Amino acid sequence: MKAKRKSIAIDMDNVIADIEEQAIIWYERDFGVRIKREAMHGIPEADAFPNKQAVYNYVHAPGFFRTAPVVPGAVEALQKLMINFEVYIVSAAMEFPLSLYEKREWLSEHFSFISWRNIVFCGDKSVIDTDYLIDDHPKNLDFCRGKAIMFTAGHNRNHHQHTRVNNWAEAATLMEQELSIQG
Amino acid sequence: MKAKRKSIAIDMDNVIADIEEQAIIWYERDFGVRIKREAMHGIPEADAFPNKQAVYNYVHAPGFFRTAPVVPGAVEALQKLMINFEVYIVSAAMEFPLSLYEKREWLSEHFSFISWRNIVFCGDKSVIDTDYLIDDHPKNLDFCRGKAIMFTAGHNRNHHQHTRVNNWAEAATLMEQELSIQG
Repeated sequence: MKAKRKSIAIDMDNVIADIEEQAIIWYERDFGVRIKREAMHGIPEADAFPNKQAVYNYVHAPGFFRTAPVVPGAVEALQKLMINFEVYIVSAAMEFPLSLYEKREWLSEHFSFISWRNIVFCGDKSVIDTDYLIDDHPKNLDFCRGKAIMFTAGHNRNHHQHTRVNNWAEAATLMEQELSIQG
Repeated sequence: MKAKRKSIAIDMDNVIADIEEQAIIWYERDFGVRIKREAMHGIPEADAFPNKQAVYNYVHAPGFFRTAPVVPGAVEALQKLMINFEVYIVSAAMEFPLSLYEKREWLSEHFSFISWRNIVFCGDKSVIDTDYLIDDHPKNLDFCRGKAIMFTAGHNRNHHQHTRVNNWAEAATLMEQELSIQG
């Protein structure tokens, strides 16, 4: 008999929901300028945009989270991970009350195979205890209880204190290796 | 120097938000019959009402969670607990998507002294790791990682496997004792 399945907490923004791309799309819609993703490297997202305040406002605007694109490969990767791991979606959504319903609806649309039992919306993630956390934010990864895995986003490119994956193909490979280590 | 403050997860429904009372109020409004709280003793809440389906429907109805009364003594007790404990509100809200925004707004109205950082809405509570959990549901208490404290609700009166508190005065006294044991 195998032991209890290991658990993975997976962040939403910039890990399964492409918030960088969504900001680029909305900014182009509003200002007619398409910002390159490379412009976000090593700086907070909003700093890449000439009108920073517009981007700050987006996260409070109806529809921003609800219509965000899915990060490429996330759906297939999560379906595969669920075979061997207990997968939780853990999003620090509490700062933006409007996003709560939108994120829940977004998950129902794109990740309907994730049970509501496995979704957590929180403030800080320090009370969440899973064996792994895949997240783009050092502030979450630095204090997590399990193994921290940094999912590459523009803003985190200069942080090197955690195991890094650049996309869902790399994340899937890493988790397969973890599984074989567990034996 | 004292050690890190112990953490308490506090459930919402029937612990700080008086959902039994809210069901009674709405049922009387809709059917002109006032059900006694005693009718809920030892059975699932909805079973106390002649029209069970109406009560099931309430939890999906706009306004039900948003306008629920506060459990007597909860505000004062939480303010006091926050002096010595790290207090988290942890609600299994994910099953009812509409409730997410309503519960967040309700907390902002009645418990504005609780930071959004300390609010968690989840599906099951098994990934939440705090030193204590105050909750009315055996399904949450049975699997919690910290010390389980059962807050009396009608439906849990026949469950005796956890330390029980009948109201917020008793809960506050118990937590003071816990603090003195910690030294």
